[in-house]
Amino acid sequence: MKLQRVVLKEYPKGELQAEHMAIIEEAIPELAEDQVLLQVEHLSIDAFIRTTFNEGAFHGTADLGQPIVALGIGRVIDSRFDGLNQGDAVFGPMGAQTHAVLPGAMLQKIDEDELPARAHLGVLGVTTGLTAYAGIVRVGEVQASDVVVVSAAAGAVGSCACQIAKNCGARVIGIAGGSEKCQFLIDEIGCDDAIDYKHEDIDERLKALAPDGLDVFFDNVGGAVLDAALLNLKEGARVVICGAISQYERTGDVKGPTNYLKIPERNASMLGYTVFRFAEEYDQIREALAEWVLAGQLALPEQVEEGIEQFPDALIKLFSGGHKGKLLVAP
Amino acid sequence: MKLQRVVLKEYPKGELQAEHMAIIEEAIPELAEDQVLLQVEHLSIDAFIRTTFNEGAFHGTADLGQPIVALGIGRVIDSRFDGLNQGDAVFGPMGAQTHAVLPGAMLQKIDEDELPARAHLGVLGVTTGLTAYAGIVRVGEVQASDVVVVSAAAGAVGSCACQIAKNCGARVIGIAGGSEKCQFLIDEIGCDDAIDYKHEDIDERLKALAPDGLDVFFDNVGGAVLDAALLNLKEGARVVICGAISQYERTGDVKGPTNYLKIPERNASMLGYTVFRFAEEYDQIREALAEWVLAGQLALPEQVEEGIEQFPDALIKLFSGGHKGKLLVAP
Repeated sequence: MKLQRVVLKEYPKGELQAEHMAIIEEAIPELAEDQVLLQVEHLSIDAFIRTTFNEGAFHGTADLGQPIVALGIGRVIDSRFDGLNQGDAVFGPMGAQTHAVLPGAMLQKIDEDELPARAHLGVLGVTTGLTAYAGIVRVGEVQASDVVVVSAAAGAVGSCACQIAKNCGARVIGIAGGSEKCQFLIDEIGCDDAIDYKHEDIDERLKALAPDGLDVFFDNVGGAVLDAALLNLKEGARVVICGAISQYERTGDVKGPTNYLKIPERNASMLGYTVFRFAEEYDQIREALAEWVLAGQLALPEQVEEGIEQFPDALIKLFSGGHKGKLLVAP
Repeated sequence: MKLQRVVLKEYPKGELQAEHMAIIEEAIPELAEDQVLLQVEHLSIDAFIRTTFNEGAFHGTADLGQPIVALGIGRVIDSRFDGLNQGDAVFGPMGAQTHAVLPGAMLQKIDEDELPARAHLGVLGVTTGLTAYAGIVRVGEVQASDVVVVSAAAGAVGSCACQIAKNCGARVIGIAGGSEKCQFLIDEIGCDDAIDYKHEDIDERLKALAPDGLDVFFDNVGGAVLDAALLNLKEGARVVICGAISQYERTGDVKGPTNYLKIPERNASMLGYTVFRFAEEYDQIREALAEWVLAGQLALPEQVEEGIEQFPDALIKLFSGGHKGKLLVAP
């Protein structure tokens, strides 16, 4: 039996292209003790994957010719690990491939009773729902009286962040590219207002929509979007830095926030975090999220690309913004 | 009787030059009810003065031909205000001039029993000692176990910040330009180590002096100095943004911190503040500072330039770093 995997062929300088990656075929290795063989069912397309193609990356730098990192859901085909049996669904570092052989200890068995397994990549996923919850509730400490602005709001983390902030009682303004995404923010995500950064002046629109300024800005974009938000901070505002998708392809040439001196002027804070800081609270956060999902207060639309050969394009799409909600690949 | 004052002749584009300012002579106006006439004894040379020469400045933009703003100490010559008498020392918005006519309600009478009046511009001054205390103790929450790095450490706020952090029990590394200033930081300010940014690589030196990273970075410089510090943050570090003297002359062209994504990576915070946020605590902070001064645990060296005609050069010197400690002009 053979597996197919996506490997990095060449480190991209600047924009990622399909030809930086290649699909190869390999024999599936024999299972060693304590290992399991998995059929990979869904792969989570996350921005951190792109950062591993850069030198000195926070999440480690990818090796050429090795499978590209990706978190995913797998189904156990064969097991030499106590506690995992054929047919079990598991979450773990699958890598961009159709099958994975992994030590059972690296995998987390998933309960599929109430929600499908792939929810653990999306609304209950560490890189998505949990990241959004940690940023909005624990770092940003969003209150019912707050005006919250979310960038990349139509993306996976952004869509969750908007809904979580709404569930906290806040007024929520989402920023996304294009009128279709903005309509999606209002109709499906429940934002109070949406700003189309491709056709509108963000600073102008923020001044119109929130003349008293923002209490919380949840940022996954950086660059010009962050700079516009910094011009509209309320006294004591919190700028929560989750990521900076506009900057991940600018190796060695990141554009820092020009308007950062608004932070002292407004007695504001820029609060950075990684979701790993809240590792001990994952179970508790997942319960809170699942409760909202089952109550119909949180829903993350998914876009599933079929076939491992779609992985390179899906990753590129994440950066060009050609998707809404959670982007998954089903190998 | 005539007064002499320094006025702004022309808005500087970029570097401030003496010819942007002029000294004029005017008659001293008659005292109206509730006003006092003051002999200006000392003027505080502060970076915020330069920011008022820029458009849209936080502290307001200066009018051409009007006296340049400056905080100072005055001695009452004549008074039509109940509660202020001839010979009293007062603190207030003197302006860059030899004499000031001001409403008594804008002035704060100063007790000269224990410390000279001009201490209210330096170690007990809102823009200096109080700013340093608020940043180190209240915003940065410096603890005895912390490694604290202070930029512009040989300046007025920096010199105070270093000593206050030492009084909190922290290990303190000061950054200044030139070996003479670095020697001053060790010998007179009590820093544990000093980095000469003009002749040393800040990033390299920080890695050598604090291999486990910084707990608190107190910044008054911005630019390359801030960027180097961001590369050396400990998990959970606090970056206290007090000011950015390297950027005040770059109107519309501020260099944001390129390495700001280290803030999320290190679960760190960038905390901005203005001293005004702590206005209700000024008396209490002043008492704490005065106690250290009287106990010999806090001393701010002063550099006094004699004559109002020295004001333009003194302000320029603040930006070229040609001074140590508190820079004052005695008109």
